[in-house]
Amino acid sequence: MALGANDQFDVVIIGAGPAGLMAGVWLAQTGVKTLIVEEKLRRTLTGHADGLESRTLEILNSFGLGEPIWMESNRTVDVCLWVQNSLEGGLQRKSVSPNHNPGWSRFQEATLCQGRIEKHLLNFVKRRGNVKIEWATVPTSLDISNRETETPGFYPIGVRIKSSNLGADEQMEGKHERMIKAKYLIGCDGAHSWVRKRLGLASQADQTPDGHWGVIDCIPLTNFPDIRKRCIIKSDGGNLMIIPRERKLVRFYIQISPIVATSFKANNCLSTLIRVLKDISQPYTFDTCHIEWSTIYTVGQRLCNTYSVKNRIFLAGDAVHTHSPKAGQGMNVSIQDTYNLGWKLSSVLMDVATPEILRTYQAERLPVAEKLIAFDRRICSEICSKTRATISDCTSDEFAGLRSTLSEENTRASGLGVIYGSGLLVTSTDNEDPIRCRDRMHHCCPHSKPHLARNIIVGKRLSSQPVLCQSDSRPWHLQDRLVSTGQWHLIIFSADITNIIQKARVERLTETLSHPESLINRIGLPGGSPVGSVVTYMIHSAPRKEVEFMDLAPILRPFDHETGYDYSRVFADNKANEEVCGCAYQDYGIGPEGCMVLVRPDQHVAFIGALEDTDALYAFLTRRVRLDWWQVRVSVETCNRL
Amino acid sequence: MALGANDQFDVVIIGAGPAGLMAGVWLAQTGVKTLIVEEKLRRTLTGHADGLESRTLEILNSFGLGEPIWMESNRTVDVCLWVQNSLEGGLQRKSVSPNHNPGWSRFQEATLCQGRIEKHLLNFVKRRGNVKIEWATVPTSLDISNRETETPGFYPIGVRIKSSNLGADEQMEGKHERMIKAKYLIGCDGAHSWVRKRLGLASQADQTPDGHWGVIDCIPLTNFPDIRKRCIIKSDGGNLMIIPRERKLVRFYIQISPIVATSFKANNCLSTLIRVLKDISQPYTFDTCHIEWSTIYTVGQRLCNTYSVKNRIFLAGDAVHTHSPKAGQGMNVSIQDTYNLGWKLSSVLMDVATPEILRTYQAERLPVAEKLIAFDRRICSEICSKTRATISDCTSDEFAGLRSTLSEENTRASGLGVIYGSGLLVTSTDNEDPIRCRDRMHHCCPHSKPHLARNIIVGKRLSSQPVLCQSDSRPWHLQDRLVSTGQWHLIIFSADITNIIQKARVERLTETLSHPESLINRIGLPGGSPVGSVVTYMIHSAPRKEVEFMDLAPILRPFDHETGYDYSRVFADNKANEEVCGCAYQDYGIGPEGCMVLVRPDQHVAFIGALEDTDALYAFLTRRVRLDWWQVRVSVETCNRL
Repeated sequence: MALGANDQFDVVIIGAGPAGLMAGVWLAQTGVKTLIVEEKLRRTLTGHADGLESRTLEILNSFGLGEPIWMESNRTVDVCLWVQNSLEGGLQRKSVSPNHNPGWSRFQEATLCQGRIEKHLLNFVKRRGNVKIEWATVPTSLDISNRETETPGFYPIGVRIKSSNLGADEQMEGKHERMIKAKYLIGCDGAHSWVRKRLGLASQADQTPDGHWGVIDCIPLTNFPDIRKRCIIKSDGGNLMIIPRERKLVRFYIQISPIVATSFKANNCLSTLIRVLKDISQPYTFDTCHIEWSTIYTVGQRLCNTYSVKNRIFLAGDAVHTHSPKAGQGMNVSIQDTYNLGWKLSSVLMDVATPEILRTYQAERLPVAEKLIAFDRRICSEICSKTRATISDCTSDEFAGLRSTLSEENTRASGLGVIYGSGLLVTSTDNEDPIRCRDRMHHCCPHSKPHLARNIIVGKRLSSQPVLCQSDSRPWHLQDRLVSTGQWHLIIFSADITNIIQKARVERLTETLSHPESLINRIGLPGGSPVGSVVTYMIHSAPRKEVEFMDLAPILRPFDHETGYDYSRVFADNKANEEVCGCAYQDYGIGPEGCMVLVRPDQHVAFIGALEDTDALYAFLTRRVRLDWWQVRVSVETCNRL
Repeated sequence: MALGANDQFDVVIIGAGPAGLMAGVWLAQTGVKTLIVEEKLRRTLTGHADGLESRTLEILNSFGLGEPIWMESNRTVDVCLWVQNSLEGGLQRKSVSPNHNPGWSRFQEATLCQGRIEKHLLNFVKRRGNVKIEWATVPTSLDISNRETETPGFYPIGVRIKSSNLGADEQMEGKHERMIKAKYLIGCDGAHSWVRKRLGLASQADQTPDGHWGVIDCIPLTNFPDIRKRCIIKSDGGNLMIIPRERKLVRFYIQISPIVATSFKANNCLSTLIRVLKDISQPYTFDTCHIEWSTIYTVGQRLCNTYSVKNRIFLAGDAVHTHSPKAGQGMNVSIQDTYNLGWKLSSVLMDVATPEILRTYQAERLPVAEKLIAFDRRICSEICSKTRATISDCTSDEFAGLRSTLSEENTRASGLGVIYGSGLLVTSTDNEDPIRCRDRMHHCCPHSKPHLARNIIVGKRLSSQPVLCQSDSRPWHLQDRLVSTGQWHLIIFSADITNIIQKARVERLTETLSHPESLINRIGLPGGSPVGSVVTYMIHSAPRKEVEFMDLAPILRPFDHETGYDYSRVFADNKANEEVCGCAYQDYGIGPEGCMVLVRPDQHVAFIGALEDTDALYAFLTRRVRLDWWQVRVSVETCNRL
């Protein structure tokens, strides 16, 4: 049977959970023809994941979805540790501490039902016309043609799909099956991933120390005073974690015995679960009229070491890593997986990057999963360990380890702490050591000069700072300008351009960049799609009233014959009339000599250089471009010269 | 012809501009059966008003509309004054200063097309089912029955309406006319108000000094450096005001001669207007490919001294006051008119207030219009005055007056500065002077003790402060809790309740308030509608970790048998982990003895008392209640005792 255009997709995504939908959001945003196939009849309505890390909120915000989700979420500002008083039997609060570390992000940890997040992502995808979703549909076969994988235009992947909602007779006959062809496929089909199994990939399991847990989402009727705070309760009857949620909901994680777990599985015996919850909560009362969702689980940490096959089929989210929900990271790491992958796929499909860059997906994300699983093991063990202390033993702080782990959860162990290693999409920070700086394509791989921005880490996402728009003095969070469109962002930290020497340095740089033959003006798609192009910003530290917009180089204020100058690219690191601004240079650790920072489409820092380092910048940018496509336009030598 | 339920409305609003729609928003929110009649075929699409004052944004925010409008708006952070250099002929920037005064509001002046604001208001109204809008419809007759005005259940107002979109033949025959009956009617039908004329009310005109102005909304192509800032340009060729807007639009106000005005009116001669704009802008270039709207106007300041007839028909917005658009106040004062009126109408219609309170509408809003017109006269004269200074005369600051007027525009002269005088809905602040405190209903009208909250002004809207929710430590702007539902807000500033004496005082107060027979528990509608009821909050200044939620009085944590405790009523004025908090007591000027502040449904302060002043509080609350309705439930003596 010949396949029509309706059966050919640039990307097929199996699974419409958070990972699949984030991939869909990128592909919708960049205009890639995509099909999402989902076994379920509709999106998640209740239960499942509910923790939103700061970095996930930043990512959602880069698509304009951050504010509505942030407003709808519950914020878990404090975390409380409670312990059973072994002398008197009751519970006692041991500590209340912040559930996030100041200065890492303008968003803090929040909780919202996975279904609501899926709803926001689905709405985004639906607003564009290029991503199709087929519900109640499963794949039945998956093939990849070896011959065609090397040819960009071809569709080497064949997937047979059928409705998951048919009667047995229809299924037997193989009716309603359809063949779909794809250039790329992403398996986001969860812990029991059909795609992963079909590819013959194993997911390595690990022994875990904390056994069985029950989960209840309900509106509690209780006199427990910290019910609207995140709590960890350690008692002889078992351990309990309390996660307050939106709409007065609270999620309870209840440690249960294997016997209770078996009984729950057999009879769906919710009453047993509630009894354990009531027991642990003693002497506080607990009741509820509204249980929204419940489940039990046995902690299983699993990791698949292969994230991609033939650089054409990729796995993401629970399909490659599962762990306990204790650290509230699952949905986050899954969303962050495909946030890493989506723009790379779009860039390759639009011919503005070599397919080689897709290898960085596993290189960048597998270490994140490995670290997460190691961290999850620690947090599980610390939450489940029996406490030695009694109430009389007030001076001992046996929770110090747990508190430090919780603090790490929101910083280093979360997306905020992720640092991608050097490679095609991140420069090396080795100090011009020619032995370590080898590269297959060039004599020496371009390197960064991290000392020019002491607190900006190459490979890490650029943290946000409020700055003032030069043309209208409006305060902006820098991250609000670094929206996810597929574009790269070159930020010139020009420092004080009223200083004559600094001004001359900046003028030399912007003159080079402004030249019509400059690499930065020629990179990217000629048709006007932002994917793969580089947009230039300047953040200066001069008093903004002493800088004249019209004196700046044309690349900082591009002119359009219909809409005039672009007034949105130049910012001042000045105090604002009212809002807290003017600390960007200090917080980024940038001195009066300034620097250039190249930020990837996913907000991770790719390169830090001096204002004179256009050669290194261009060498780096050239590496990720498809060389065959690129060479017809401009030779590497020319760009290095410009 | 007998009238069915379909032709009877609690309120009929003539005009669906900003004033009419804000009235509609209140009535939609409180569930009042309403008809809005609008002559136009649809909402405003381009042009007209565009200035949003901070107070208007606060008001919109109290209905959940603030954030989306604020995000969509352009912010006019700075204001620049330019003057012609009489020696060299060109323009020179004389000053750049903030366009708002810090500390007055968390919102600042912003600009957005009136049509977009109408769109947000319309969406709000449409989401509820109780407000109907008939477009392309005009009133043709208006009658009010004297006999029925005193009877609450009756519909004393008769309005005949017809389609404004009929052919001449159909109009002649009087076909399609329909009689509508209403309890109340609001005329929001603009400067040429049919309702005002029908009532035989005159609008007093005033001579104005600045004559004729042209207005253009366009996307300019210009090298004028401050085009994204609010600018006032004074030149020999005329004066110019620049207001940057959303979507790269800029509004230009161009002073023109009577000849140009006449020519424009005759030929709609936009090119003449653009020529004047180009002349004034010299030596900067000006061009445009996109003109969205243009008009000319002759400044006419008009005021109607009668805002209501028989306490049944009300006028609002341009129907009672018109002035120049210079101060960007028109749409704001109109929205604020009906924001003042809407909840009063709902309270009377729902029988939780005496119709007498409707008389406060004119008493509160007419002085605002009078002050606005006086202010407008000043700002017009200052913008239009010829400047004496030349560039060589740098030391003189002839703009000091204009700058101070502009500063006033955003503070005292805007909604933020409005103070409603004492009356049925605002207590007196006279210090127990029995002669000045007479009242028709009581021996002595209840008075406030303003010294207990030195920076909270009785009659003024309560400014917002960030505070932390006691139960989950989440920071909230206090104003985000004072949402517009028709409810009154009693805020107990309990100060440091870990202090034993203060704790005892607060406990006595909350015990009194918590009593089932307490006035505060019996006031309002029994059916659960918030209109007219009083909700109690507490903001304490004790360290929040030393306050136990469950130790607080029941009135501060009402219990619902399905959804548990209400965790949203107690706040701490503490430093937050990250956000700027913990200055509420200091900024409100409240000392360690604390106080009670009663806030009206429109966020204006009605009463300030000591923690012991429940008698005065109850006496005040009783005054605005319908006495006939009230007396069957609880006598004034009983409430004063409780």
